[in-house]
Amino acid sequence: MMAIERVAIVGLGLIGSSVARAVKERLPQVTVVGHDAKAEVRDIARELGFCDIIADAPAAAVADADLVIFAVPVGGMADAARAVAPGLRDGVIISDVGSSKAGVAAALGAALPGHIVIPAHPVAGTENSGPAAGFASLFEGRWCIVTPGAGAPEDAVAALAGFWQALGARVETMDAAHHDMVLAVTSHLPHLIAYTIVGTASELEEVTESEVIKYSAGGFRDFTRIAASDPVMWRDVFLANKEAVLATLQRFNEDLTVLQQAIRRGDAGKLEDWFTRTRAIRRSIIEQGQDDAAPDFGRKH
Amino acid sequence: MMAIERVAIVGLGLIGSSVARAVKERLPQVTVVGHDAKAEVRDIARELGFCDIIADAPAAAVADADLVIFAVPVGGMADAARAVAPGLRDGVIISDVGSSKAGVAAALGAALPGHIVIPAHPVAGTENSGPAAGFASLFEGRWCIVTPGAGAPEDAVAALAGFWQALGARVETMDAAHHDMVLAVTSHLPHLIAYTIVGTASELEEVTESEVIKYSAGGFRDFTRIAASDPVMWRDVFLANKEAVLATLQRFNEDLTVLQQAIRRGDAGKLEDWFTRTRAIRRSIIEQGQDDAAPDFGRKH
Ligand SMILES: NC(=O)c1ccc[n+]([C@@H]2O[C@H](COP(=O)([O-])OP(=O)(O)OC[C@H]3O[C@@H](n4cnc5c(N)ncnc54)[C@H](OP(=O)(O)O)[C@@H]3O)[C@@H](O)[C@H]2O)c1
Ligand SMILES: NC(=O)c1ccc[n+]([C@@H]2O[C@H](COP(=O)([O-])OP(=O)(O)OC[C@H]3O[C@@H](n4cnc5c(N)ncnc54)[C@H](OP(=O)(O)O)[C@@H]3O)[C@@H](O)[C@H]2O)c1
Repeated sequence: MMAIERVAIVGLGLIGSSVARAVKERLPQVTVVGHDAKAEVRDIARELGFCDIIADAPAAAVADADLVIFAVPVGGMADAARAVAPGLRDGVIISDVGSSKAGVAAALGAALPGHIVIPAHPVAGTENSGPAAGFASLFEGRWCIVTPGAGAPEDAVAALAGFWQALGARVETMDAAHHDMVLAVTSHLPHLIAYTIVGTASELEEVTESEVIKYSAGGFRDFTRIAASDPVMWRDVFLANKEAVLATLQRFNEDLTVLQQAIRRGDAGKLEDWFTRTRAIRRSIIEQGQDDAAPDFGRKH
Repeated sequence: MMAIERVAIVGLGLIGSSVARAVKERLPQVTVVGHDAKAEVRDIARELGFCDIIADAPAAAVADADLVIFAVPVGGMADAARAVAPGLRDGVIISDVGSSKAGVAAALGAALPGHIVIPAHPVAGTENSGPAAGFASLFEGRWCIVTPGAGAPEDAVAALAGFWQALGARVETMDAAHHDMVLAVTSHLPHLIAYTIVGTASELEEVTESEVIKYSAGGFRDFTRIAASDPVMWRDVFLANKEAVLATLQRFNEDLTVLQQAIRRGDAGKLEDWFTRTRAIRRSIIEQGQDDAAPDFGRKH
């Protein structure tokens, strides 16, 4: 297996800084070099000390690295890759943490021809962003999806998978197009719906914004968490994964029409059946350790 | 002010048992009599001991009560009211905790002519139901909306408001129709959307249910919590508050179409603007103490 002794992380926000922190905690023998395009972020990263070295120049950041991880918004991957290109050594593994994969694979491949590119996506996060929002345990028990292209060397794929496992993640491999369809359902569509409903609620004439806020404990507040996620990151995700998002959105719209009709017609049986089926899914998520069983996510009351 | 020395609670599930527990903890001088239509629930309630007395017969439960609170699904209010009617004393305050108010006000008024009916709705809950799911602190810091009709005696309204404040709630008064519009937005539409998306995700051909569960930490799991709520309770809410739910759903659909178009056209500016606006709402909810500021609702990672 290829040894990873030096990791470069480009983009030191929530995910990049969490990877750095997790490496420091779980792989203390590995050297972590960090870089962010923003000087302010580099300063905060230096202060917080979650990297061994913070490099001001992108090419310097990746020098001698065995693994480079791009942790920037998916629309920024190509720029970030071009900026580090002059500093890359032969045989380095290029990877990323972007929330969509087919577009990122193409962008990294085009920006870094001749390099080993193995895209990945840790399915973990919070609504916060920036270098102060990260934490070492973010990936524990969560899945990291690795999407190697056809020509990816097996030892490099194994090394990357081993790296994520060392950070506490479980690893699954699939092709990029399938990843984008799965995540359209489990992440992108939920974010789109949450952004929509929070927008709708804040612009009704009949109900004031202050009422929406006061009575949000009725369910609405659950949606506001993910609708507070980083606007640039999510803008990029929807643009990058357009086809899969629009396809799942169409299915959602069809189902919503079915329920809308059931309400209009007073079809009690249809509503009760539907609401009974959806309960089972949550039980499975809890059983498989993907959510907290405590009521209300364990919120303090 | 009217004194409330004896409270009868009809329906001993999540909300009814939470009211009972909160009274025992915060108003120890008040006697709590509980009744549930289900013998099994009465047995559990006796075992858990959150009421002073559990009555097997509905009319016996309300004898001598100063306040009767119906905590049954909104479609069951009329039946529950008719069952207790023979036992009610003159001057008793009749109230409830139902999630919709205009329909409940009409049903209770028709079932109990000549009685003082003051509907109310504590905007607090979890995804669990039944007598074991309740807890005394459920209403602390949450709002309870009281919707007195035109003829409601002021001292009775004040007594009911004081009762909820004593349980830790903040009280607001509004008319039933406005309540139903506000809650359609802050609670009923979010539940409908969550039920829909969880149904959609579990029935796609391209993505298996097991994938949906594995990768639910991308956002989907947030929706499964409220889509695990009681099917009968929610069936009744949508049937009872049909008009307001359908009206807000139409607004949601319009907004969803706008975002769908922005994605299709690649309108980056529109997406980023929208996603930036929705962030502010969450900040206000946290500032006003209606949600936890901890990332990811404070879930353990
Ligand atoms: N948040 C999540 O829940 C989550 C989960 C899984 C995966 N992801 C993926 O992880 C990636 C990073 O997201 P995040 O949540 O960590 O975002 P974040 O907190 O906003 O951090 C991104 C950082 O990258 C910097 N950056 C942007 N372009 C750059 C470039 N060309 N070179 C170097 N640095 C650059 C940004 O600086 P500026 O402030 O100047 O833009 C920012 O500091 C995204 O691809 C996202 O899709 C996110
Ligand atoms: N859950 C929430 O988050 C929430 C929040 C605010 C308000 N509410 C409202 O609170 C009310 C109760 O909801 P919940 O969550 O407490 O439901 P729950 O846990 O299912 O409890 C309802 C209880 O009432 C019993 N019941 C049904 N019909 C009855 C009757 N005619 N006489 C006596 N008992 C009867 C039920 O017995 P069976 O098992 O036989 O049906 C059940 O034990 C509903 O109107 C709901 O809209 C709920």
